[in-house]
Amino acid sequence: MSEPTISELKEQIRKYELQLEQEKLKNMKQREKITKMSAEVVDSNPYSRLMALKRMGIVENYENIRNFTVAVVGVGGVGSVTAEMLTRCGIGKLILFDYDKVELANMNRLFYQPHQAGLSKVEAAKLTLQHINPDVEIEAYNYNITTVDNFDHFMNVLSTRSLSNGPIELTLCCVDNFEARMAVNRACNELNLNWFESGVSENAVSGHIQFIKPGETSCFECAPPLIVASNIDEKTLKRDGVCAASLPTTMGIVAGFLVQNALKYLLNFGQVTKYLGYNALLDYFPTMSLKPNETCSDPFCVKRQQEFKLREEQRLREQVDVVEEEKVEEVLHPDNEFQIELCDEGEDLPDLTKNDKNKNTGVKHAFPASVENQANEHDASNEANEMSSIPLEDLMSKLKNL
Amino acid sequence: MSEPTISELKEQIRKYELQLEQEKLKNMKQREKITKMSAEVVDSNPYSRLMALKRMGIVENYENIRNFTVAVVGVGGVGSVTAEMLTRCGIGKLILFDYDKVELANMNRLFYQPHQAGLSKVEAAKLTLQHINPDVEIEAYNYNITTVDNFDHFMNVLSTRSLSNGPIELTLCCVDNFEARMAVNRACNELNLNWFESGVSENAVSGHIQFIKPGETSCFECAPPLIVASNIDEKTLKRDGVCAASLPTTMGIVAGFLVQNALKYLLNFGQVTKYLGYNALLDYFPTMSLKPNETCSDPFCVKRQQEFKLREEQRLREQVDVVEEEKVEEVLHPDNEFQIELCDEGEDLPDLTKNDKNKNTGVKHAFPASVENQANEHDASNEANEMSSIPLEDLMSKLKNL
Repeated sequence: MSEPTISELKEQIRKYELQLEQEKLKNMKQREKITKMSAEVVDSNPYSRLMALKRMGIVENYENIRNFTVAVVGVGGVGSVTAEMLTRCGIGKLILFDYDKVELANMNRLFYQPHQAGLSKVEAAKLTLQHINPDVEIEAYNYNITTVDNFDHFMNVLSTRSLSNGPIELTLCCVDNFEARMAVNRACNELNLNWFESGVSENAVSGHIQFIKPGETSCFECAPPLIVASNIDEKTLKRDGVCAASLPTTMGIVAGFLVQNALKYLLNFGQVTKYLGYNALLDYFPTMSLKPNETCSDPFCVKRQQEFKLREEQRLREQVDVVEEEKVEEVLHPDNEFQIELCDEGEDLPDLTKNDKNKNTGVKHAFPASVENQANEHDASNEANEMSSIPLEDLMSKLKNL
Repeated sequence: MSEPTISELKEQIRKYELQLEQEKLKNMKQREKITKMSAEVVDSNPYSRLMALKRMGIVENYENIRNFTVAVVGVGGVGSVTAEMLTRCGIGKLILFDYDKVELANMNRLFYQPHQAGLSKVEAAKLTLQHINPDVEIEAYNYNITTVDNFDHFMNVLSTRSLSNGPIELTLCCVDNFEARMAVNRACNELNLNWFESGVSENAVSGHIQFIKPGETSCFECAPPLIVASNIDEKTLKRDGVCAASLPTTMGIVAGFLVQNALKYLLNFGQVTKYLGYNALLDYFPTMSLKPNETCSDPFCVKRQQEFKLREEQRLREQVDVVEEEKVEEVLHPDNEFQIELCDEGEDLPDLTKNDKNKNTGVKHAFPASVENQANEHDASNEANEMSSIPLEDLMSKLKNL
């Protein structure tokens, strides 16, 4: 009989540690599953403050959140908080991907606790999240999505593991390296799935989120965000004696922006921001919108662009019809029938009427003109405005020269 | 012998529940206290990513954070996350105030977990925070600061409970009602202590933070933020069958803004924003700066204004001297010796040189002109710009007419 290998022994230890964590959580008071979200205002209802979004006129059908499956790729500083926010919001199903372990060095960010050091991140996260909200279905995959075999499995999960065994509704990319971002980008281009990219700079004081709709907005391969295109080799971050800075504030804010925009997209309220930056030193929030690159090196991106063009031509024709219809409707209904009312801070707000009117009649603006306008309407900076009108080729060559 | 009263029995139950929670946490692996913050990059160092802020050129002396005492008033949706972020950043001492209990209805926001339902918020928070970072000293006060006796005690804590038994360095107000905000305002005006006010709207999709320096910026009684000055009686929020909406995203983002600006203030980096708003529907971030009201009804505010005017006259005289000196220095040193370098997103950033030059020579701009300029320099909206130039009296009468 041969001796067990070190990796076999480590695997055994890992299993015991997980069982121990499971036992500890079992000894804590568990809340029972709730079959139907209720708006009843009692202290024992974990959904009362979320269902109140309906009464406040913000979300039409909050309970729809139970139908959606969201993947969170990378459950580190941004991804773990992202997963916790979605769990507390009562998302239908969460799928977690990571292959890292919890370390004490992660304790300067929210979510993980010191006693979890040594556990796999996805498994530790799954246990904590299920304890917080047992109504959420959680799947965890403890592997690196960039290897050939795992990438195929990853693609398969994204395209078949929704609550109705179809493609999932949204992927949130919260990884810290270029390769994993490229893997998510290629999978979503090929599967034609919408996703959000996110990132935090290695000096910890800036970050961004970016919404990518294959064929409609610039994909990650068309134009990687400036943050990633800096001239620093990301692989150097894990060298001995060198580490990037991070702050719970910046990572929590980026996770907040990510989930807030994911909720707006899934539950159809407000306006989803295509690119939102955060500069912590100045509290400066650049927004922009980039068109896809017609010569993108990902053939699936180019294919999606062609499909999008055809859809747009169709939509433009329909839009003309609906605008005709709208002229009649305006006489019949009050102008702001479903207008979102903000009872406070009213003085600060730009006019919402235009967007709401569109919402009422179901008209969506045609890309690219209107999406650019929406994104830049309340833009903080002339520079960002300028940015979005620079041709992509110029921007790329600018990046390469950095 | 008389029967125990219901409140005595409840008090006994509360004690047992806390002991139970304490026992549970004891059974979890505890991390040992760390006497000195180290920048060593090993997985077991919980401060490596924070101390890296020094190497990245963001913070000059991160370890100074251990000298500061911060009070968090209200440890609900915003306050609990605020306290957790400060704890993970390794703040010297935290003082928590609240008199509420954890309920399942709070589970739609970060921090508390279902098994803590029934515990007092400050005591549950203290246990969790000490488990997360045993290096932070934590004091918890389970009372309502607005009653006469408690207010006196509150004032006494703020003025004597710092690590050196003097006034604490900063107070973060995270309460959900007008009365408690007024109590913090009066205490800080009388004690001449700087503080941040914060708030989230009852429809859950907007929020703000505001930095208040008695005598220098508008206090809460000079001009309550618009959010609070809406025509809705806040007391109605707790009526049976009625509750305000809330989201973990908005509250996490506001907590992030609050702690980020608190860190900038305490550790002297970046630019502290005087007022930062957040509109989630549009990802719109108004900033503004309001001067104090000379006829403020709080006599201590008026007193601080007079003191500030005298200090400003003195500072202006000194500034002239330093500017003379600067002319010589500029020849001796490179212009951007301590300039904060952002290796990425450089394209998005406004010119930092002006502010950094001031930082190098220790010159601070004279209020009000420069503070207004700084706050509005990267302002998202013309409306907000307009706002800050409206005389306070007009604004107040506008609010009253709402």
